[in-house]
Amino acid sequence: MSLVVVGSVAYDAVQTPHGGVDRMLGGAATYIALSASYFSHVKVVAVVGEDFDPEDHRLLAGRGIDLDGLERRPGKTFFWSGVYSHDMNERTTLRTDLNVFADFEPRLPDSYRAQPALVLGNIQPSLQRSVRAQMNGVRLVGGDTMNYWIQDHRPELLETLRQWDFLLINDGEARMLSGAYNLRRAAEKILDLGPHTLVIKRGEYGALLFRRDGHFMVPGYLLEDVFDPTGAGDSFAGGFIGYLAGAGIYPQDGQIEFSELRRAVIYGSVMGSFCCEMFGVGRFRTLTRPEIDARYQEFKACTEF
Amino acid sequence: MSLVVVGSVAYDAVQTPHGGVDRMLGGAATYIALSASYFSHVKVVAVVGEDFDPEDHRLLAGRGIDLDGLERRPGKTFFWSGVYSHDMNERTTLRTDLNVFADFEPRLPDSYRAQPALVLGNIQPSLQRSVRAQMNGVRLVGGDTMNYWIQDHRPELLETLRQWDFLLINDGEARMLSGAYNLRRAAEKILDLGPHTLVIKRGEYGALLFRRDGHFMVPGYLLEDVFDPTGAGDSFAGGFIGYLAGAGIYPQDGQIEFSELRRAVIYGSVMGSFCCEMFGVGRFRTLTRPEIDARYQEFKACTEF
Repeated sequence: MSLVVVGSVAYDAVQTPHGGVDRMLGGAATYIALSASYFSHVKVVAVVGEDFDPEDHRLLAGRGIDLDGLERRPGKTFFWSGVYSHDMNERTTLRTDLNVFADFEPRLPDSYRAQPALVLGNIQPSLQRSVRAQMNGVRLVGGDTMNYWIQDHRPELLETLRQWDFLLINDGEARMLSGAYNLRRAAEKILDLGPHTLVIKRGEYGALLFRRDGHFMVPGYLLEDVFDPTGAGDSFAGGFIGYLAGAGIYPQDGQIEFSELRRAVIYGSVMGSFCCEMFGVGRFRTLTRPEIDARYQEFKACTEF
Repeated sequence: MSLVVVGSVAYDAVQTPHGGVDRMLGGAATYIALSASYFSHVKVVAVVGEDFDPEDHRLLAGRGIDLDGLERRPGKTFFWSGVYSHDMNERTTLRTDLNVFADFEPRLPDSYRAQPALVLGNIQPSLQRSVRAQMNGVRLVGGDTMNYWIQDHRPELLETLRQWDFLLINDGEARMLSGAYNLRRAAEKILDLGPHTLVIKRGEYGALLFRRDGHFMVPGYLLEDVFDPTGAGDSFAGGFIGYLAGAGIYPQDGQIEFSELRRAVIYGSVMGSFCCEMFGVGRFRTLTRPEIDARYQEFKACTEF
């Protein structure tokens, strides 16, 4: 049983106060898949160009990720470059070259269709919906979106969200989607749109999980050094859904066991924190499951009272 | 046994997105004392002018606060006015009239001197030190400071901090005091200055407690409405030290039991959250201890995993 991950695979250039990298593997599907691979079998659907480095293919395959759905097309891989503010809480996009991603039409290999869990990285809502429609008997579906789809493709996004179990977005997106500034009120409105579970990511300030019968709050893990926050939100998503999918935890009567959701949020936070420790996907080259479990326990020790 | 609270008693004018108030009771000592009064006997040292409203005197006395050390002098009470940003995470001072506070020289009544706990609101560091010197056998001392003293009265502040058990400041102040941006590194440097316990307040994002052997993190309580954040940090301080003083928890071998510090941080967070629910000290007019304990339990339920 696998988790199907759909989204972008890209090359990124980033500048942070700790330095910069001109070209490194990135993209939402990459981070989600790498992060989730510590918890669950993962199958990726994405598109890359002719410039996709065999080394990067090996990195993903080396984590046991099924790449049958990684389409290779004439042209170049999606490229993004950005620069982070001094405190790394804001980033400015310098360049976005969609390249082969511009015509991305995710098509699931047959071996993907009957899998029980699906996570949709931030892509066009209608494409997210088309993927959902290609699955048979999927039991856990969720994903991410962004300001552009919320503002300019709202009806399409709302139709997509109706079929999701969970939505993972940041606080600014939650405010934009709901029209409410206060996050409790924003969450109430978003839970009316379809998902029974909402996770609001707050970067260094942690995360919030909402459902109708209550919420869960976790502070951000305190890193000694944040090298590069790129991919931290997607790594969070990978840890969150990866944990649920890997443990075979699906909604029953429209709800997931709250204690399991809490654990999933902590695993998400743990994976987001590891991601920031090196540039790009660097940390996933050496990260081990015992390190993840140790940080989970550290989270417990630092928040229990 | 009482907690001695020293600081400003003031009148404030504030504007928030929820409206404004032209004149309301405020000041660090006021908020600290009101908040701490739910946990401990409290004795206040402060100065007010001839305009101090008997109604406000009654409010404090009604919470059992000893006002023998509240000096009344010719002139007007300290006045501050400010306006909050839309998200209430920033505020701009419009006016500060020190009035009788300009010549404040805290003098402790004899009945205050042998008390075991002292909390010093944000005043000139040399005055904070003079108060400490007037106490006999005090067992728990701490307080607050601000950017002005950190930048322009640093040597004086450092001398003061050497005698403190704990320091409660916000994240910007911690960065300024330590010269380190990363809060773990900032905390290490600050713990070299004297206090064995550092609490960093992060407003809506919660609080962090550091000592040499570990740290504790708590997210901010999620309010449905934040009416006025004025005094929230001081209410936090009042809950934190009030809990410790009221329960008779003092340092032993230079340390306070970590589990008690965690509880103190939660009580601080609870009191800070209640403070934001109405303008000024409004919430303390009706707040009860059972409400406080219920919110403490709610914090536990929302953060446990």
